[in-house]
Amino acid sequence: MTDKTEVDQLLKQLFPICRSITGDGVRCTLRVLRGLAYFRTYEVPSGTNCFGWTVPDEWNVRDAYIADMNGKRLVDFGENNLHLVSYSEPFEGDLDFSKLLVHLFSLPDQPDAIPYRSSYYQRGWGFCVTSRQWKELANWNATYHVKVDTTLKPGHLTYGEALLGNKGREYLITTYCCHPSMGNDNLSGMVLWALLLKEMQGRNLKNRYRFVIAPETIGSLAYISLHEEEVEQLAGGFVITCVAGPGKIGYKVSWKGDSVIDRVVVRTFRELDLDYKLYRFDVNGSDERQYSSPGLRIPMGTICKDKYYEYPEYHTSLDNLDFISAGSLLQTLDAYLAVIDNLERDEIYIPLHLVGEPKLDTLLGYPVLGGGLLPGKAAMLDAARWVLFYSDGNTSLLDIAERTGLPMSSLVQAAETLVEKRLITQKEKK
Amino acid sequence: MTDKTEVDQLLKQLFPICRSITGDGVRCTLRVLRGLAYFRTYEVPSGTNCFGWTVPDEWNVRDAYIADMNGKRLVDFGENNLHLVSYSEPFEGDLDFSKLLVHLFSLPDQPDAIPYRSSYYQRGWGFCVTSRQWKELANWNATYHVKVDTTLKPGHLTYGEALLGNKGREYLITTYCCHPSMGNDNLSGMVLWALLLKEMQGRNLKNRYRFVIAPETIGSLAYISLHEEEVEQLAGGFVITCVAGPGKIGYKVSWKGDSVIDRVVVRTFRELDLDYKLYRFDVNGSDERQYSSPGLRIPMGTICKDKYYEYPEYHTSLDNLDFISAGSLLQTLDAYLAVIDNLERDEIYIPLHLVGEPKLDTLLGYPVLGGGLLPGKAAMLDAARWVLFYSDGNTSLLDIAERTGLPMSSLVQAAETLVEKRLITQKEKK
Amino acid sequence: MTDKTEVDQLLKQLFPICRSITGDGVRCTLRVLRGLAYFRTYEVPSGTNCFGWTVPDEWNVRDAYIADMNGKRLVDFGENNLHLVSYSEPFEGDLDFSKLLVHLFSLPDQPDAIPYRSSYYQRGWGFCVTSRQWKELANWNATYHVKVDTTLKPGHLTYGEALLGNKGREYLITTYCCHPSMGNDNLSGMVLWALLLKEMQGRNLKNRYRFVIAPETIGSLAYISLHEEEVEQLAGGFVITCVAGPGKIGYKVSWKGDSVIDRVVVRTFRELDLDYKLYRFDVNGSDERQYSSPGLRIPMGTICKDKYYEYPEYHTSLDNLDFISAGSLLQTLDAYLAVIDNLERDEIYIPLHLVGEPKLDTLLGYPVLGGGLLPGKAAMLDAARWVLFYSDGNTSLLDIAERTGLPMSSLVQAAETLVEKRLITQKEKK
Repeated sequence: MTDKTEVDQLLKQLFPICRSITGDGVRCTLRVLRGLAYFRTYEVPSGTNCFGWTVPDEWNVRDAYIADMNGKRLVDFGENNLHLVSYSEPFEGDLDFSKLLVHLFSLPDQPDAIPYRSSYYQRGWGFCVTSRQWKELANWNATYHVKVDTTLKPGHLTYGEALLGNKGREYLITTYCCHPSMGNDNLSGMVLWALLLKEMQGRNLKNRYRFVIAPETIGSLAYISLHEEEVEQLAGGFVITCVAGPGKIGYKVSWKGDSVIDRVVVRTFRELDLDYKLYRFDVNGSDERQYSSPGLRIPMGTICKDKYYEYPEYHTSLDNLDFISAGSLLQTLDAYLAVIDNLERDEIYIPLHLVGEPKLDTLLGYPVLGGGLLPGKAAMLDAARWVLFYSDGNTSLLDIAERTGLPMSSLVQAAETLVEKRLITQKEKK
Repeated sequence: MTDKTEVDQLLKQLFPICRSITGDGVRCTLRVLRGLAYFRTYEVPSGTNCFGWTVPDEWNVRDAYIADMNGKRLVDFGENNLHLVSYSEPFEGDLDFSKLLVHLFSLPDQPDAIPYRSSYYQRGWGFCVTSRQWKELANWNATYHVKVDTTLKPGHLTYGEALLGNKGREYLITTYCCHPSMGNDNLSGMVLWALLLKEMQGRNLKNRYRFVIAPETIGSLAYISLHEEEVEQLAGGFVITCVAGPGKIGYKVSWKGDSVIDRVVVRTFRELDLDYKLYRFDVNGSDERQYSSPGLRIPMGTICKDKYYEYPEYHTSLDNLDFISAGSLLQTLDAYLAVIDNLERDEIYIPLHLVGEPKLDTLLGYPVLGGGLLPGKAAMLDAARWVLFYSDGNTSLLDIAERTGLPMSSLVQAAETLVEKRLITQKEKK
Repeated sequence: MTDKTEVDQLLKQLFPICRSITGDGVRCTLRVLRGLAYFRTYEVPSGTNCFGWTVPDEWNVRDAYIADMNGKRLVDFGENNLHLVSYSEPFEGDLDFSKLLVHLFSLPDQPDAIPYRSSYYQRGWGFCVTSRQWKELANWNATYHVKVDTTLKPGHLTYGEALLGNKGREYLITTYCCHPSMGNDNLSGMVLWALLLKEMQGRNLKNRYRFVIAPETIGSLAYISLHEEEVEQLAGGFVITCVAGPGKIGYKVSWKGDSVIDRVVVRTFRELDLDYKLYRFDVNGSDERQYSSPGLRIPMGTICKDKYYEYPEYHTSLDNLDFISAGSLLQTLDAYLAVIDNLERDEIYIPLHLVGEPKLDTLLGYPVLGGGLLPGKAAMLDAARWVLFYSDGNTSLLDIAERTGLPMSSLVQAAETLVEKRLITQKEKK
């Protein structure tokens, strides 16, 4: 199992990298994550059409700053990569403040926060600054030297993919990798994604899992356009993002609200006795916007801590390594793992003994002196009775867990014993 | 728009007319209402069979009174037409009180109220009096001269009809016109019906609306028997009655309870932030008894203020012009208009862009600087996202409004923009 | 009707008999019950295979005791038949306490209670004693003379059956008859079963009722194996058990939870304004385990007072004639009878008058002076209106009762009048 120290190092290593929807920042990030868990990376050329969107030119940054006329850097990309609006095009020149003004972005309500801004599909350049910096620059008589030393030219969009398992239903586990130096959104998501992949890689799985890491929106669209048939047959999935904040664990339900994904999460959280927050579906979200669109309608949920939009540090420089913690991230990882465990347990069984109750005590080797169970095996016998009673070829272990309140782990154990005794048999999943 | 003065005049003009299920009172009333909005009137001959009922002889009143032997009128139809039981047959003669008694109706609990009584299908005559009048008449030694100068002979039942719109679904908007001088039930309903017709007559409508005004029960039955095929294909409708009382706006749900009619009313009332009263379906009601009968099952709702049965003045002379007000009537009219507006907005759209989210900001010309919307168009973009996300050929704007809480007016505006941009297309209604 | 004295005598007569799943105790019990109501008895030979279970050898007891070496009986089957573990095999011998120990069963938490134990399918012998008796026996130096004078040899399992009615749906009314001297479980159930049979035997029924009395589990399995086709077509039923305790009336719902059986019980209890306890379905129960198994899925409910498992005297000698009462038993009988009455009333009607409301007042001979009903028949007319409105060939009187809150007795009375007037006609049940 992963420990906090390992996670902490990883967070520190990945935090400073300047990521965007294309460019070397993404490549470098994926390389680090591949040190953790195995997945392949792919490159999609600029100009590729994806359902009406176009993979943009590749963007890379050498340097960017606003300096006074003495050459003193007042705003420096080198200090914090949020200072530069993502996808700023190259520029160099001297501007007085009245000209610079329209290129500056700040948050009046949060004086020490640098906002996060991007401009992927509209060419231009800009700097994000704290309110304090903005006030220092705000001198109508001053002239500034601005340099945006970026390249924007045909290249590639990079994504990663790993496929686990070879039977059962297929679930998607996706995250994005396009945000610069911010902790919860989305450094934490990428790290959890890789740790989850690592944990599951060694397992003998009853379902298939499609792990995808790609830039948000355009990356998902590119991925879908290259894997449309595979995506169409997904049974559901998760968008992993914002998983290491200080608040409560939360769950944003899928667009369906009562899909197997949603039901398994809620059941698992109850089994864990988690005090969690439930979020309604909102079309303002992450890549579920693509995967759940009318032509696909894949139910996608998000387990988070804390959810995007819901904390004031969101999309600013305050969402940093101080805001998140390895401990929080591991808590959310545990929740995801518990959910996956229950997804794995959700089987349907067909009865082989149709009429009347089989003589369970004898069959299971739990002899009872009628009228009073010998102690010990009572709970097991109880779970077996429920599984046997409800298993009619249509009722899943999740259904049974919901009706009885018994943990899915007990039900699956009972089911396996019943299968051994040829009382039920597992139904093949479609 | 209609103003209070106009409504007040109309109420005063129509109140005194003696209406019944047939006769000149109805004709006169419809003539006044036709001065307000255009509709045609039709006459159904006495004796016409309507699903087991028979259109009765036509009834008209010249005079009716109870006088003492000096000729002094003690109870006079000329003073209040409620004094005469509707459909009383002609009679003249001297009776002592013991004989008169069985022809008198009063309300012991409401000393100053004249009850409203009719006897359409049982021949006889009667007078309705206040308890005070009853006590004055109650002299076992007295003899009275009674005159009921009415005519009951083959003639016609009169109804009015207007058809608006030429596409979409068809809804029924009906009221009745058979009650004598009472304000809320049913003078107010007739006036609102005519004002609603007037308001809607100039509009370009997305649905068809069948406006019917007819005597209650027998009038509806006659109308249905003459238009059975048209009635069978109605998508729903409203029975307008009791709309100008002093109490809360109320809604009596259709027999289905969750028909589009019911859902649109509830949604509209929430959008208006109305403090309203919801009434369960009750088979003891008005013409929904005919339109929702097992062979038709049209869902019919009633928006009212105050509902029949629910106020003590109901079906007495106290339900008069003091009980109702033009202001109340116009409030209910506004509610009906808002509901019709939302009925008009309830369309289903088919997606033209199936997979992935279209680049909405660009398509709608709302350029955003990624990660933070330019102010202003945010709400519009939000509505567009929801409409686009849910529009899959099965989900109506009403469904989307219920799921998101967004007003239907915003959704329809978003939908129209999306149609323009060829992202969705309107589904034809069946 | 049955009175308390009669019930009391019956309880006293049947209590002492030593019943088990086979043997003369059952035969004797059924003979007494046949004095009350007519049913036939049947015998199934030992060794018969029933869905993997085997009808065991027949067990009868002549005598059984633990005595000291002076011949003084310390534990005596003659005093309480619970002292002997049911199905104990013959044994005679002298044992010191260390050998006797494993054959003794007691309840440390209930010092004065003899537990009820059986060992049908594992051969051996045992004695059940109070904790006080156990302490008296617990002398490591003592030797005891033990005699178990029982016979275990091929014979028969006995059950009883009566079939009532010859049309409509078929319901099962079953109880078991295999417990020795305990009052609520299950003496009370057998007596109520026989009283219910007696009450219903004289009636003209609209449904068929299959009354079965058999040993629990193996008896039901034997019955089902001999009547599989008949059981498969059952519409539902009741397992009668635990019906004469001092607590609240309760209802354990069927595995479906919302079957007609469940809905009729809940409706009836509301009509009776009963303060009752609702129990979730539990696979740990009685013969519903057999009848509701995946291959049969008959919905089986249980009305009880107090439910098994729910009172501390359960399955001990404290569940005796002091714990139960004839009054309680008759209360539960009344509840069952009221439920059966409503089951009998649950018909579906097809409309003969499809469009518009028929002129009900005239047709039913309840002349009204329009606008105010003549007093008296108003409730009847109201019920008739509801039945007529909802009867569309799919909606049952139970549905109508649930929607309107009107008692099923009023609805059925109204329906019968409407049938007479040829406004509706009864739909044949499948």
